[in-house]
Amino acid sequence: MAALSLAHALRTIAWEDDHVVILDQTALPSERRDVFLRTIEDAFVAIRDLQVRGAPLIGVSAAFGLYLGMREALANQDADPARELARCSAYLAGARPTAVNLTWALQQAMRDVAPLLDSGDSQAILARLLRVAQGLLDADVATNRALGLHGLPLLRGTRAILTHCNAGWLATAGFGSALAPLYALLERGEEVPRVYVDETRPILQGARLTAWELEQAGVPVTLICDNMAATVLSQGRVDAVLVGCDRMAANGDFANKIGTLGVAILAREFGVPFYAGVPTSSIDFALATGAEIQIEERAADEVRRVGGRTVAPEVDVYNPAFDVTPHRYLSAVITERGIVTPPFDAGLARLRDLSGEN
Amino acid sequence: MAALSLAHALRTIAWEDDHVVILDQTALPSERRDVFLRTIEDAFVAIRDLQVRGAPLIGVSAAFGLYLGMREALANQDADPARELARCSAYLAGARPTAVNLTWALQQAMRDVAPLLDSGDSQAILARLLRVAQGLLDADVATNRALGLHGLPLLRGTRAILTHCNAGWLATAGFGSALAPLYALLERGEEVPRVYVDETRPILQGARLTAWELEQAGVPVTLICDNMAATVLSQGRVDAVLVGCDRMAANGDFANKIGTLGVAILAREFGVPFYAGVPTSSIDFALATGAEIQIEERAADEVRRVGGRTVAPEVDVYNPAFDVTPHRYLSAVITERGIVTPPFDAGLARLRDLSGEN
Repeated sequence: MAALSLAHALRTIAWEDDHVVILDQTALPSERRDVFLRTIEDAFVAIRDLQVRGAPLIGVSAAFGLYLGMREALANQDADPARELARCSAYLAGARPTAVNLTWALQQAMRDVAPLLDSGDSQAILARLLRVAQGLLDADVATNRALGLHGLPLLRGTRAILTHCNAGWLATAGFGSALAPLYALLERGEEVPRVYVDETRPILQGARLTAWELEQAGVPVTLICDNMAATVLSQGRVDAVLVGCDRMAANGDFANKIGTLGVAILAREFGVPFYAGVPTSSIDFALATGAEIQIEERAADEVRRVGGRTVAPEVDVYNPAFDVTPHRYLSAVITERGIVTPPFDAGLARLRDLSGEN
Repeated sequence: MAALSLAHALRTIAWEDDHVVILDQTALPSERRDVFLRTIEDAFVAIRDLQVRGAPLIGVSAAFGLYLGMREALANQDADPARELARCSAYLAGARPTAVNLTWALQQAMRDVAPLLDSGDSQAILARLLRVAQGLLDADVATNRALGLHGLPLLRGTRAILTHCNAGWLATAGFGSALAPLYALLERGEEVPRVYVDETRPILQGARLTAWELEQAGVPVTLICDNMAATVLSQGRVDAVLVGCDRMAANGDFANKIGTLGVAILAREFGVPFYAGVPTSSIDFALATGAEIQIEERAADEVRRVGGRTVAPEVDVYNPAFDVTPHRYLSAVITERGIVTPPFDAGLARLRDLSGEN
């Protein structure tokens, strides 16, 4: 079946018999290499070294890592399950201390397994932990598929779209977040638009990851430098812009990879619809507006060095990792629970009040 | 004197005794290296290999190259000056066949020396050719200084400005075109604004050249990736944007390095004045609007490769070298004959009708 084979082709992580298989994203785009995670240390390294990346994928990997760590710990009959669980969780949380989803997934697993800890039933504890990890994986894929189906009508009939950074299947456990509607078209055998991909300096996620993942899926790709987006939009080459979202405020303002704000303004200037694909888990209703989102600044050498070589003199660098796009530039927000159009504050609030079922 | 020492520090080319000294721009920013041009072949290589770049500087280098070639040719008493001149000129014109200023400078020199060719007076011919080359150099420096003085009031009192690509002293025989107002402030000992420099992918002229030349001149620099300009503008970090111009149409539409259009739109969105520094020689009154300007597309590997390393898979690439900014985004055009504000068609026409004196 086409659906099954596409799902298989676009997966970043899977459980096989007694170990995890991940696609090593540090080897891309030069090589497609699988890595096996058999121990908690393997999982720690995969997260720390960015072999897996993207919030949902980090969370899923951590949950599997917790299972692998406990499997080894509880092989010792005298082990204290509660103590071992705390130890394994603390260890994994240190792999990427700033990744919110990492902590969230570990807490979810610990909460789910808590009632079993005093039973002393190692098999039950391990079975529960494995089920939690598999559940997170399945839930992410299901969320992505639902987001894809809701967004599909917006892409149907477009000749080409523009995207920024990586919000595709490499950033998730499968099918992508913002790019999920594209993969939904592909899975149904419908015509898919060409995708113009911003290279996304300084880390080049667009060039290294998005261009590669689209090509793997058979989607036609045109790579551009970030500063060519204005020309592409002005020439009418694309019918829509589709980007991901790291964090959205209650009013629809959202933080995403640096460069998103510029593309949003240019899209509006040239009358091209601008869509953000956002799992509802990324909407933070505690934030009234985007002004409350703190922007991380990263190392100067990310800008001064490219491809391993220093290209600039030792001058000052400003290197914000994200920017905040005000909701007024957004045409629609695509979520796994439906599409939201302006006014966003009311529309997003309605989503929050929906049940989480998809 | 401060003026003299600054002029000396910011020069890309000079005539010394019996040879030309150029700053080898291919060694930047890692090394400041002078190269001596003693033969026409040296000049050919310097132009072909981009040791000198920027329209005015290429023209000046070619004129000196013509002198060096004729000096060697006419050392032979039997040489036919007219034949040798044609040979040398054709040879140099092949160094960068698409550089308009190269052909223009060679034709200028040939026209000036034409009346002397039949005299058989080698000394007079050579003296005239040397004077033409030095005249082109002096004229470029004078144009830049005049442009700088006209633009100076626009920058006075600004805390910071943003620029794109390289329109500074490295692109000219001295003092820069668009950045000349900045150097005019510096030369007068007035406070200079900090300059945010777009790195300017794919060739990175901003990171490699502009950041370096400003630092050499003692101007505070902050380097950013192109996609960070929206954030810099949205945060009110800069009071003006100043860019160069490859070719301007009669209505003020202009072609410049790819990425200029995006910066222009973003500047208007955030209410920041957007200025183009343009020697009148770059205004082509035969073009009614920017729609008539053809945009060159360059090799895919400029985008796929960075710093000598391939970063992207073998996907399609769209790599336009320039974009066209409609005049409606321009706040003012700064030329060596004065400043033009909207309506640009009338203002530019008035400039054309002025005498060329500065």
